[in-house]
Amino acid sequence: MTENHPDLDVVIIGAGPAGLSAGIWCKDIGLNAVIFERESEAGGQLLSIFNPITNYPGLRTENGREMRDRFLLTAAAYGVDIRLSTEVVEIDPTGTSVRLADGQRISSKAVILASGVRRRRLDIPGEAEFAGRGIIVSGSKDKELARNKTVAVIGGGDAALENALILSKYAKKIYVIHRRDKFSARREFTDAASAVPSIEFVFNSAVQKISGSGSVKEITVHDRTSGDHDLSVDLVLIRIGVEPNSGLIKGVAGSGPNGYLRLDSDQRVIGALVYGAGDVANQAAPTIVTAAGAGAAAAKAVLRLSVRRNYV
Amino acid sequence: MTENHPDLDVVIIGAGPAGLSAGIWCKDIGLNAVIFERESEAGGQLLSIFNPITNYPGLRTENGREMRDRFLLTAAAYGVDIRLSTEVVEIDPTGTSVRLADGQRISSKAVILASGVRRRRLDIPGEAEFAGRGIIVSGSKDKELARNKTVAVIGGGDAALENALILSKYAKKIYVIHRRDKFSARREFTDAASAVPSIEFVFNSAVQKISGSGSVKEITVHDRTSGDHDLSVDLVLIRIGVEPNSGLIKGVAGSGPNGYLRLDSDQRVIGALVYGAGDVANQAAPTIVTAAGAGAAAAKAVLRLSVRRNYV
Repeated sequence: MTENHPDLDVVIIGAGPAGLSAGIWCKDIGLNAVIFERESEAGGQLLSIFNPITNYPGLRTENGREMRDRFLLTAAAYGVDIRLSTEVVEIDPTGTSVRLADGQRISSKAVILASGVRRRRLDIPGEAEFAGRGIIVSGSKDKELARNKTVAVIGGGDAALENALILSKYAKKIYVIHRRDKFSARREFTDAASAVPSIEFVFNSAVQKISGSGSVKEITVHDRTSGDHDLSVDLVLIRIGVEPNSGLIKGVAGSGPNGYLRLDSDQRVIGALVYGAGDVANQAAPTIVTAAGAGAAAAKAVLRLSVRRNYV
Repeated sequence: MTENHPDLDVVIIGAGPAGLSAGIWCKDIGLNAVIFERESEAGGQLLSIFNPITNYPGLRTENGREMRDRFLLTAAAYGVDIRLSTEVVEIDPTGTSVRLADGQRISSKAVILASGVRRRRLDIPGEAEFAGRGIIVSGSKDKELARNKTVAVIGGGDAALENALILSKYAKKIYVIHRRDKFSARREFTDAASAVPSIEFVFNSAVQKISGSGSVKEITVHDRTSGDHDLSVDLVLIRIGVEPNSGLIKGVAGSGPNGYLRLDSDQRVIGALVYGAGDVANQAAPTIVTAAGAGAAAAKAVLRLSVRRNYV
C-alpha cells in the first residue's frame, strides 16, 4: 500500500465512532487517510448496543448498528477508505508508520489510535467454555432466552443494573452479583432495581467459577465473610466494565491509569508522536458523541502539527 | 429561580452545540440542569451556517438551522430546560452560582461555560454604519445581492476564501483582501480561488475605512508598501476570524492564548472551579461534533466531581 499511497497523510486505527469521525474529518480538511479495522465490520462498541440511542445530539437511532450505518453513510459521502479485517500489530515510535498482521509496513505522516475498549473478562474457569451456552452477551439482545429462567448478572455499574432491569421483565429470578458492598451504578438504576421483587442483590461476592454440562447450571460465588457457595442459574451476563485496547501504544509510550491513553490538548499521546481519540483515551466520558468529537479534533491536530506545520 | 430549583445541579451558559449537548447529557445522567442563552433563539454559531453540513457524523443537514432544530429535538425528548434571552453577567468564583442580567442570582452545584465565539470585528469607521447596507453577513445567504456587483471579502482563512468562491458565481469582481503576504486557508480553497479570473488577491493590505452614502461605495486600503488607496466596491464581507466569548471567566480565572479557555482533562477551566465546553475553549478544533462531544464530557465530569464525588 505504501506504493499505492505515496502521499498517505494519516493511518487511523479502529473504525468505531472515533475512527470513523477521524476519517470523515481527514477527508473534509484534505488529508489522505486510511482506516484499519481489525474486525470484519466497522462500528466498534456501537455493534454491542441493542437499545435505542437517544443521547447523540441530533440523531436518534433504534440501536447501535443503525447509528453505525449512519456514520458509514457520512463516511461514504466523503469516500473514506476503510480496510476491514486488517489488524495493525505495531506502531513505529516515530508515529509515521504501522505494521499490519500480514507483515506489510504502511507509512504516513501521522497515526491516530482510535482502537476503543473491550469488555473486561472475569478470567475464571467456565467463562470461555460456556460462551454462547448460557453466558449471554446482552440483556436486550438475549432477553427472550431469559424467559422464566434464573439469571446471574455480574457487575455493579450502570451496565450491570440496566441489564438486570431489562432482563427482569422476562426472567423468573435475577441475581446481581457485585464484588463490593455497594453499586457504582447511578441511583436511577439502583432504585429501580431495588423495587423489583425478582431482583436480588448479592454484595461482597466474587464469582469464581461457571459450571454446567452442555450449558450453564451453576456458579460458584465467594462471599467475603461466609466463603464459597453455589447458586443455580441458567444464564450468566458479565458486565464488569471495559478495558482499553491500548496494547499498541506499549512499545511507543506509557499509558495512563487503567491502561488508558493520556492525551495532551492536541490529542497527542503524552510522551509519544501518536495521536489518540475515543474511548481508548477517555475513561471518564466514553460517549459516542465525545468519541466522534475527539476524532474530528485529532484530524485537525494532524493537519496543524504533522502535515502543514504552519497551519493556524 | 433558586426557590423553584432547590436542587439545581448545573447551570449551562450558552445554547449552541456544546451547551445543548451538555443539557442533553445532564438529563441523561440524572442531573438537574438549566441552559441560559443570551440570544432570543438557541443554536449559537449554527445559525450562521447557510451551507449544507456534511461533516457531522451520522447526520447531514441542509444548513445550520436544520442542525440546530435536530439538536433541539433531542433536547426536547429529554425535557432540557432552555431559557432564551437570558444573559448571565457574572459567575461566582466558587463556580456555584451565577448572576443574571436582571439581578437574579442562581445557585447550582456547577457551572458549564459554553458561550462560544463571535465573529471578530475590524473596528474601523463605517463598519457599524453600513451593516446590512452593503456589509453582508454571508456569501451563501447574500449571494443574490452580489449579482453583477463588486465585492470585497476581507480575510485570509478558510471562511474568507470559501465565501469568495461562493460569491464568484454571482459577482462581477471580487477582491480578497488580506493583511499578510499569504493566506492561511487550506490549499483546496486557495487553489480554486486562484483559478477564478474574477477573483483578485490583495495581500499585505489592511482595510482602514468603509465609506459610501446610503450604502457602501468604497473602501480605503492601506498597503504595507504603497500606502493608502481606495477601491470601489458595492459589497463587503468580513471574515477575519472569531474570538471567544470568555469575558465571564475574567473575574474567575485567567484565560489562555487569544482569550480562549484552557481546560484540564476534566473539562475544568484551569485555575477555576468552572467547567468549559465547546468553541470558547477550543480554538484548534471548533467543529460541531467536537463541541457536542465536549458538552457531554463536561456533564459527565460535573456528575463525577461536583455532584457525586465518589462516582467512578
